[in-house]
Amino acid sequence: MKRPLIVGVMGGGKASPEDADAAYRLGQLIANQGWVLLNGGRSAGIMEASAKGAQEQGGLTVGILPDDNYDMASAYVTIPVLTGMGSARNSINVLSSHVVVACPGGSGTISEIALGLKNNRPVILMNFDIGKIFENYRKQGVLHYEKTPEDVIEKIKKLRQIKE
Amino acid sequence: MKRPLIVGVMGGGKASPEDADAAYRLGQLIANQGWVLLNGGRSAGIMEASAKGAQEQGGLTVGILPDDNYDMASAYVTIPVLTGMGSARNSINVLSSHVVVACPGGSGTISEIALGLKNNRPVILMNFDIGKIFENYRKQGVLHYEKTPEDVIEKIKKLRQIKE
Amino acid sequence: MKRPLIVGVMGGGKASPEDADAAYRLGQLIANQGWVLLNGGRSAGIMEASAKGAQEQGGLTVGILPDDNYDMASAYVTIPVLTGMGSARNSINVLSSHVVVACPGGSGTISEIALGLKNNRPVILMNFDIGKIFENYRKQGVLHYEKTPEDVIEKIKKLRQIKE
Amino acid sequence: MKRPLIVGVMGGGKASPEDADAAYRLGQLIANQGWVLLNGGRSAGIMEASAKGAQEQGGLTVGILPDDNYDMASAYVTIPVLTGMGSARNSINVLSSHVVVACPGGSGTISEIALGLKNNRPVILMNFDIGKIFENYRKQGVLHYEKTPEDVIEKIKKLRQIKE
Repeated sequence: MKRPLIVGVMGGGKASPEDADAAYRLGQLIANQGWVLLNGGRSAGIMEASAKGAQEQGGLTVGILPDDNYDMASAYVTIPVLTGMGSARNSINVLSSHVVVACPGGSGTISEIALGLKNNRPVILMNFDIGKIFENYRKQGVLHYEKTPEDVIEKIKKLRQIKE
Repeated sequence: MKRPLIVGVMGGGKASPEDADAAYRLGQLIANQGWVLLNGGRSAGIMEASAKGAQEQGGLTVGILPDDNYDMASAYVTIPVLTGMGSARNSINVLSSHVVVACPGGSGTISEIALGLKNNRPVILMNFDIGKIFENYRKQGVLHYEKTPEDVIEKIKKLRQIKE
Repeated sequence: MKRPLIVGVMGGGKASPEDADAAYRLGQLIANQGWVLLNGGRSAGIMEASAKGAQEQGGLTVGILPDDNYDMASAYVTIPVLTGMGSARNSINVLSSHVVVACPGGSGTISEIALGLKNNRPVILMNFDIGKIFENYRKQGVLHYEKTPEDVIEKIKKLRQIKE
Repeated sequence: MKRPLIVGVMGGGKASPEDADAAYRLGQLIANQGWVLLNGGRSAGIMEASAKGAQEQGGLTVGILPDDNYDMASAYVTIPVLTGMGSARNSINVLSSHVVVACPGGSGTISEIALGLKNNRPVILMNFDIGKIFENYRKQGVLHYEKTPEDVIEKIKKLRQIKE
């Protein structure tokens, strides 16, 4: 059996309504492609929204939780992976993703962008302005900027050379 | 959506033909129940055999790999979680399993039995004699001994109070 | 500067008075040799006793804590390393030790013995009977049995080829 | 015994001669204060320079290595902690530091700044411009900017309310 593409969706535990809507739509589109959505697993912000979008479309959702129990896990995560290791799990989030999409977020999300780039994972920022700190990675073609969920899907197809 | 039961199957990277056969059969039965099989993810021994059994029956298989790349991942693992953290991932294996089944193995497998018990996960030893070291856990009803894959499935149903 | 020898002392968070006394004495002797004592860092059982013994003799003590804060750290640990990763830190405990000494303990201690052997660290059981599960490692000369703190020190000197 | 202050010094595995000189000087000053220097442990860039500075002044240096062996450890690290968990150890680096100083670096260093802020550790950027991404943390008094090693030492004393 061919393994499905795993798309990591990172982003804040707190999200504006617009960002949550976009993450929800991104989750839907990922599921519609038959891809797996992987995120940080909690029932909050971008994590909850993206998992909800994917699972409602019948997609498989994997949540890599910082916790050692299910108390804070999103109900929309099919497979909760309990790491019990707090922020150290951020490294697993990005290593396990073929492509990382970062929605707006705070220091946790930025740590995931940084760890993704460090480990040579392609990272797509969706409507998320983080200034010029990773400009060298953009020039190398590892870091990308897109505005909408639809654009992100197209970019993933290009990066993975997926034909319609 | 109700989350599926996740059954962790631990065991040696090297396995006798008999042990590999039993792990393969256990994987089949887990998939037939609609449960998810979780293991250490590598293409060797009990890991490879149990994932093969489950995936051939259409089951979902999750592999928590010590590695940060796919080189040693089993082809029968649907969702490879790349931890990049060597033996420290043994803790994740058992935390993420509702029930842990330990097939015969070496020091890695014994560390997983110990970590499972430490974290209050029910552990079933399948045809694996480890002496009396965890006798107190057996008396508390956390550690169990079974002979065959079929017996293990029945024990899991009892532990999880699953009715036919 | 030559790096000091790091001796990991594992053992239960609960300890009998006799076992705690032996761990305290072991800590003293490790410090008297100029070695560093490394343990799990908490203010309980073998951890507390061994750190107390070492620090009272002027020795350096390093505690690898499962926690992300100092609440449960032993006052006798000079350098608390906060991992925030629960039992996953057991792997770090043994990897970071040139030699692992295991005092009597429960499932956590046994996981550390197993992880130590898995990673080719010499492991000395001090007055701790764990049956025959790791008999193959004893035959290979990786696992050793000693009765007293004094015997453990002598064994470490032999293993590390340290001359008086 | 009162525990010593642990100052984490982060920064690139590659460093300009000016940045390496500043890190070396910072290491010297940390040791002169009687503080412990903690870093990523490798024999490269800011890690090597800061450990060298501290150890040459008789300071204690702790290196939290991504590796499971000593091959890439700096000779100036007194206590190498072998995590064997790659970038996931970045979380341990900052959790274990009372104060984090970030010298110029790349994605790894930025992940450590982000993880430090996420976990409420005070972070001082030494001559390192990362734009406005963490501006909210600066306003909250968690993120600080200093130009020279001497300024960093003064800032640490203020943050920790250490009197001369």
